[in-house]
Parts: sequence; structure tokens; C-alpha cells
Amino acid sequence: MLSDTIAAISTPLGEGGIAVIRVSGDEAIPQVDQIFDSKKSLEEVPTHTVHYGYIKDPERGERIEEVLVTVMRGPRSFTREDVVEISCHGGIISVNKVLQLLLRRGVRLAEPGEFTKRAFLNGRIDLTQAEAVIDLIRSKSDRAFSIALKQVEGRLSKKIRELRQELVEVLAHIEVNIDYPEHDVEEMTSAYIKEKSEKVIAEIDGLLHTARQGKILREGIVTAIVGRPNVGKSSLLNELAQENRAIVTDIPGTTRDVIEEYVTVGNIPLRLLDTAGIRETSDLVEQIGVERSKHAIAEADLILYVLNNGELLQPEEIELLEQIRDRQYLVIINKIDLPNKLDLAKVGELIPEDRIVKMSVKEGIGIEELEAAIANLFFSGELEGQDLTYVSNARHIACLERAKQSLQDAIESVNAGIPIDIMQIDVRAAWEQLGEIVGDAAPDSLIDQIFSQFCLGK
Amino acid sequence: MLSDTIAAISTPLGEGGIAVIRVSGDEAIPQVDQIFDSKKSLEEVPTHTVHYGYIKDPERGERIEEVLVTVMRGPRSFTREDVVEISCHGGIISVNKVLQLLLRRGVRLAEPGEFTKRAFLNGRIDLTQAEAVIDLIRSKSDRAFSIALKQVEGRLSKKIRELRQELVEVLAHIEVNIDYPEHDVEEMTSAYIKEKSEKVIAEIDGLLHTARQGKILREGIVTAIVGRPNVGKSSLLNELAQENRAIVTDIPGTTRDVIEEYVTVGNIPLRLLDTAGIRETSDLVEQIGVERSKHAIAEADLILYVLNNGELLQPEEIELLEQIRDRQYLVIINKIDLPNKLDLAKVGELIPEDRIVKMSVKEGIGIEELEAAIANLFFSGELEGQDLTYVSNARHIACLERAKQSLQDAIESVNAGIPIDIMQIDVRAAWEQLGEIVGDAAPDSLIDQIFSQFCLGK
Repeated sequence: MLSDTIAAISTPLGEGGIAVIRVSGDEAIPQVDQIFDSKKSLEEVPTHTVHYGYIKDPERGERIEEVLVTVMRGPRSFTREDVVEISCHGGIISVNKVLQLLLRRGVRLAEPGEFTKRAFLNGRIDLTQAEAVIDLIRSKSDRAFSIALKQVEGRLSKKIRELRQELVEVLAHIEVNIDYPEHDVEEMTSAYIKEKSEKVIAEIDGLLHTARQGKILREGIVTAIVGRPNVGKSSLLNELAQENRAIVTDIPGTTRDVIEEYVTVGNIPLRLLDTAGIRETSDLVEQIGVERSKHAIAEADLILYVLNNGELLQPEEIELLEQIRDRQYLVIINKIDLPNKLDLAKVGELIPEDRIVKMSVKEGIGIEELEAAIANLFFSGELEGQDLTYVSNARHIACLERAKQSLQDAIESVNAGIPIDIMQIDVRAAWEQLGEIVGDAAPDSLIDQIFSQFCLGK
Repeated sequence: MLSDTIAAISTPLGEGGIAVIRVSGDEAIPQVDQIFDSKKSLEEVPTHTVHYGYIKDPERGERIEEVLVTVMRGPRSFTREDVVEISCHGGIISVNKVLQLLLRRGVRLAEPGEFTKRAFLNGRIDLTQAEAVIDLIRSKSDRAFSIALKQVEGRLSKKIRELRQELVEVLAHIEVNIDYPEHDVEEMTSAYIKEKSEKVIAEIDGLLHTARQGKILREGIVTAIVGRPNVGKSSLLNELAQENRAIVTDIPGTTRDVIEEYVTVGNIPLRLLDTAGIRETSDLVEQIGVERSKHAIAEADLILYVLNNGELLQPEEIELLEQIRDRQYLVIINKIDLPNKLDLAKVGELIPEDRIVKMSVKEGIGIEELEAAIANLFFSGELEGQDLTYVSNARHIACLERAKQSLQDAIESVNAGIPIDIMQIDVRAAWEQLGEIVGDAAPDSLIDQIFSQFCLGK
């Protein structure tokens, strides 16, 4: 059943130069060949070659589209099955017509993530690599992308497999001991189990240590920019967005509403809340504005609270400063190019110095200081090396924590002098929990759930 | 200069399984080869082959993306130059990182339409074919798409070239006559010019005759659905949209706001106005609703005016019926499954029978009748054969009309007994105007303007 032939549109829908339909399965090549109008037969062409021609409805004799067809025979393909990619002119109609033709002729519409799922089930990639493929697609910053790419390359898998290997050795040791039970051997084994478990726990802790940063780098720091009207919220937003544009370029068709507002301050990705609210002229909607700010503040991981150096500090500003003091926040004193009217002493009383950033967004002053202050808050100063293997996926974190717990149980059993065949259960559990991360011991329902998060055509 | 190397993202931006960067020009292969991390050298691989590897920043030594690279050497390529396509994981970051890397290394960002422009300038396609490429991408209905595809295949070009050939023969005839001027030959030549010109005019008329239908099929009939609240406007809209979904499928990511609301009734594409207004619950915004309806009515090519068979005819409905009588409209009497309360006799007095369609959208009754009524209004009954060469482009229509005028001037000159070297000017003008359609005599500014309408990456 696995190798029934599936197809889907693999490029985002919209106006563009190229749209690609991916077809995979035993019948992929003959199925496409039957609708490919060309002198060549795709069944005879070498693998990894590209062919020009038309897609033609054989029943109606009607040419549907001018295409390039790429043939990639398994196992040297994304799914390890025979894969054909049909590259159409961009747009919506053409690619749909070709897909509909394939579906009418018995090819099945692929489920979301089904191509990647087949790559996993056929053993080309493991589960962490498959999950990283989603992360690659969804990533909103350079750092998130490089973490995902390393995971696609199999860095995390390698680490997990090493830990599992350690546990397999422990399990073998226990097995021998159960088969040849002699008291002094048992004692030695207990010590061995404890030592090995502690070692693996230390490694797991090392991975878990990266989790918070990994999550931030993957998802961005959820950030609210708040402050009274005219303090410079929207210029700050625009300044940050402009920095960002160097990476996510201003290509027409990038709908800001859809991709959300992500900006990068230095290397740190921020996910900005309620940027529409900030961009609006705020006079008319001031009341809604206040509600919105409160909502944004409640949701945010980081609050950037903007004050205007050129105006007096307002009572409601002091009130809000007090409200956010138990949160992760930075106070931005903007417009330092203007003559000072703001009561800096009062601000200094309320707010520790390392939470204050003086800026002039207009003059481009203070952006680096802002970056340093954010890094200080979230990464205790410096971003860790590019080479770290980050754990950023909630599922992986949960599995690691459960494995750690099982190993701690094993150690406790050792300490309590419990027989080693009981410990075996805990060590085996840890081994299985780690296996679930890479998919070696993952139940079908979990696998289905993971792949259902993919987009169509991947 | 033409063959400097250009690159652009050719797939729409967004989350998807595949994103493609297209690179074209003399340096396309070496440029990509330098950033392609693989055992192979792209400079040595055969044309039209696909290669797996990583894109790597050679300066930073950092892997940027896992890719498939396709090499297509000119002239067997889209642009007739060397073309490399880099197929990345979908998403926004990865494809941008790869593009930015290429740009940093001296490849130029392609202008909108520049790949197709090169295909034109390098003689692979003519101007009508290039224009049809935009139409393919933009097409919103099956019919629009097949008209564009035929134009891509060169059907219109062939027709235009035949007409130009006729005129070349006339010009040759005139030339001979000027070189050997004898009275009786001149008379014969005049008769010949007239006959040929009339023949070409007839052919041009045949093409122009398709223009109105071509425009409708290409752009859709701009349609307003109007009527009082609760007559069934939004169920009609949903019914039409559902029909449509069979073609433009309900693939996630299709943002209805962006692609506009196109539906197909039978084979006829309708572009629906103000569907947001229809979808809203109308009670709160009734006043805005009336304004909107008026606006939609003013803009529409076709008005679908919906009445409710189960309610009494309202005075304001009679008023509006009278307002739209000089327009292209159909009156839909909806809910014919309900007991009749609507004064059908009164409606019959105001509206001719062939403009009335009785429906029950809820019961699925009357959709075919609606289709027939629309076909009747816009295509005098039947849609013409699939095989017609449609002229649907405003530029082509203008050129054809100017060519026709020049030939009419030539005929008038013949009738007035004006010397044939004067006629020569008109015939040559017609020949050039036809040439402008296919791009043989198109000025650079026109060419720039045409290609600037393209999307990036095409």
C-alpha cells in the first residue's frame, strides 16, 4: 500500500514563474509518461534527467500545459521511490489542471507531509530529520534555519544514537548478570549502571540546557512594543523591519499579514505582536489601543517599553512601569537627540540600569545597545556558538525529560539495593524514550500526528 | 551585456515543499558551481541533468541549504542561455539565503520578466508568445488558460505571419511596378492591391471579432450579485464558488483575498464584485450595503439581480429593476421551492422572459439555466469552438485596428486613382503594425513596458 502513487502541488500557490507538481510511487513514471506529449518515453530516460514537452489529456487529446519533467528513480530520490517532478508555468490554473488530470487517472492526492513521511518510512531520514524539514520551511530567521538545517543533516540523531548505544551496553551488562547471577558481579553491575546512567543524564542535561535558547531561536522572542502615542513605537518598528528586509527581501507577493512580522535584532529573532496596532494612527483608536497593549503585554516574552526623552514622564507611564517590573522587559528612552524633559532620575529609581536602553531611532543611535540588552536578558550575554546541537522541539524535550527520569529511577534503585532485573526495566524505558525521538520506537499514531503538521506537497 | 548572469526566486513566496531559484547567463553554471557542495563539478555534467548536494557559502564555509540543482545549457533552455535551477526546501528563509549569496557573489537580481525577455530577445519566442506567458500565469479560468496556451504555442503568431506574408507580396508587386512603370501594369497592380487589402482586412476582422469574447474569457465577466437581504445572494455565491472549487481546489494557502473571487458557470468565467460585502451579515451594515451595491452595479458587465420567490415584491426592488434595464442583467427568482408570494406577473411586465432565471439555489435547481442565460447574453447562445484563435490582448487589438485602417487608406487611394508609390506607404504601415504584434518591429520602450508587467522570476 505504501507505494501507491501520490501527487501534490509542492510550490506555494500564487502568481510566479514556476509551479511544481511532485509525483511519487511505483507508478509515478508510467503515470506521467502517459500524459507527457514528447517524442521520448519517460520510462526509458536515465534517472535525474529533465525533459521538455507538453502535458496532454490523452482522452480529450487536448494539450494542457508546456512543462519540464524531471525523472528521479528510487532509491536516489526524496522519498526513495520513483519521483517525477512536473515544472509548469506559474499561476493557479495550469498546475491545478495538471494535478486534476493525474488524479482523474488514478493517482492519489498526497496527504500533507506524505512525501517526507515516505522518506522516513523508507529509511532515508529519521524522525528528527523529518521534523527538521518542517522547521526549515517554517523558519523565520537565519538562526532558526541553521538549527533546522543541522538537524536535517542528522546532528541531533547522531547524538541521540550515541546515548542509546551507551544504554544498550548497560542493558547487555545486566543481561549477562541475570544469566550468571553471582553476588559480587551484581554489585559491580550496580555500580556500572549508576555510573553509566549518571553519564547519560549529564549528556541529556546538556541537550536540555539548549532547549530554551533553541526554542527562542526557532520561534523568535514574542515581543510587544508598547508606549504612549508619539514616543516613536512605529519608527522603532520600521527601523527593526528595515534591518530585517536585508534577509527577508522585499519581493512582491510577500504578504506581511500572512507571514507575520518577524524581525532580527543582530542575530536574535523577534516575533512582534500587534504590529498592525502600532502602525495605525493611534488617535482614533486610542481606547482600543490600550486594550490591545494590555493583551500584547500579557502574551509577550519580552516587553519593549518606549518612553520619549523629549516629553515629561506621565503618571500612567509610571503605573505601567510598575506593572511590567516582574516581567522580561527593556525600557527604551527614545529621541535622545531631543532636549531632555523626561525625568531620568525617576526612571532610574524604578528601573535597574541594565534594563534601560537610550536610543534615537531617527538618528540610528542605540540599535546595537538594544541588541546587547536583549542578548543579555535571554542568553546571559552572548549567543552560544553556531556549532551547538540545539534541542528546540517540544516533543524531543519531553522525550529527553522522560528518559532522564527513567535513568534517575534506575539510580535510585541502585542506591536502594533493589535487584538489577528491576533496574533493567528503567534503563530499557530510557532507551525506548530516546528511540522515540529518532523514530525507532515511535508509535504509528505519533508518526501520523507529526506528519499531519506538514504542508501539502512536502 | 545581455548575457550577464541574472537570478531570481521563481516560485511564489510562502510555505511550501519546494522553492526554486532560476539563474541564467554565461556565468550561470560556474557561479552556481562555486557555491555547490558536491563531489561533482557542474561545469562537467551533461545538460538537462539534476544533482543533489548542498549550497555552501565558500567564504564562511557554512552550509546554507540542501538542494537539487538542474543544469540546462543553452540554447536548449527557457532563455536560450545557460540556465541553472536551484530547488530548495520551501519556505522563505532558505531560498532568500541562497539568492542573497548569489547576489553577493556578483550575480544580478533579475528584473520582472527578464527571463522571458531574454527568451524573446534570443529569438526563442516572439512577442505574442511572451505575452501569453503572462496570461498563462494570470489566468483565472480554464478557458482563459487554454487561450493563452494556444498563444504560447504560437497559433496567433502563425496567423499574423501569414497576413504579413500576403502584404510582403503586395509590396513586392508595387516595387516591380515602380521599377517598370507602365500604365496598364499600374492599373493591374491597383486592382491587385485592392483585392489583397480587402482579403487581409477580412482576416483582421475575423480576428477582431474574437476580441470581445477573448477579453471576457481571459478576464472573466465582471459580475455583481445584488438584491435585498435574505433573498439568497450569499447562498448563490457559495454555490457558484463551490462549483469553482472543483477547478481551483481548496488547497491551503489559497488566500481568497489575494486571488480575487473567480467562479466558473459552465465554461464562462465570472469575476465577482464585492463578495466580501455579500458574505457579511448585512443587517448591521445595511446602509453601507446599499452604497456598495450601487458601486458594484456601476462597475459590472453583468448584474445578477436576485429576488425571493417566497416574499412580496418590494417597491425599492421595482425601482432598482427599472434602473438596471439598460444594462446587461439577469433577474434570478430564487427559492422557487417556497410557496410563491412574489408578483411574477409584475416582474414579467418589467422584464423580458429571456432575462429571467428561476432557481432554487438550496435545491440545486436552475444553475444550468443560469449558465445558458449568461451564454445567451454574452456569446449569442453558444460558446465558440475551442479551436478558435482568440485575440484578447488590448495591444494586439490596437495594432490590428491600426493595420486595418492603413489598408483601408490604401484601398481609398486605389479608388481615388492616387499613384501606387503613395499606396506603398500605407501597405508598408500595415505590414509594420502587424509586425509590432509579434515583436518584429516593436520599439524597445514597448518591449520594456510589456516585460515589466511580469512577475519576478519569470
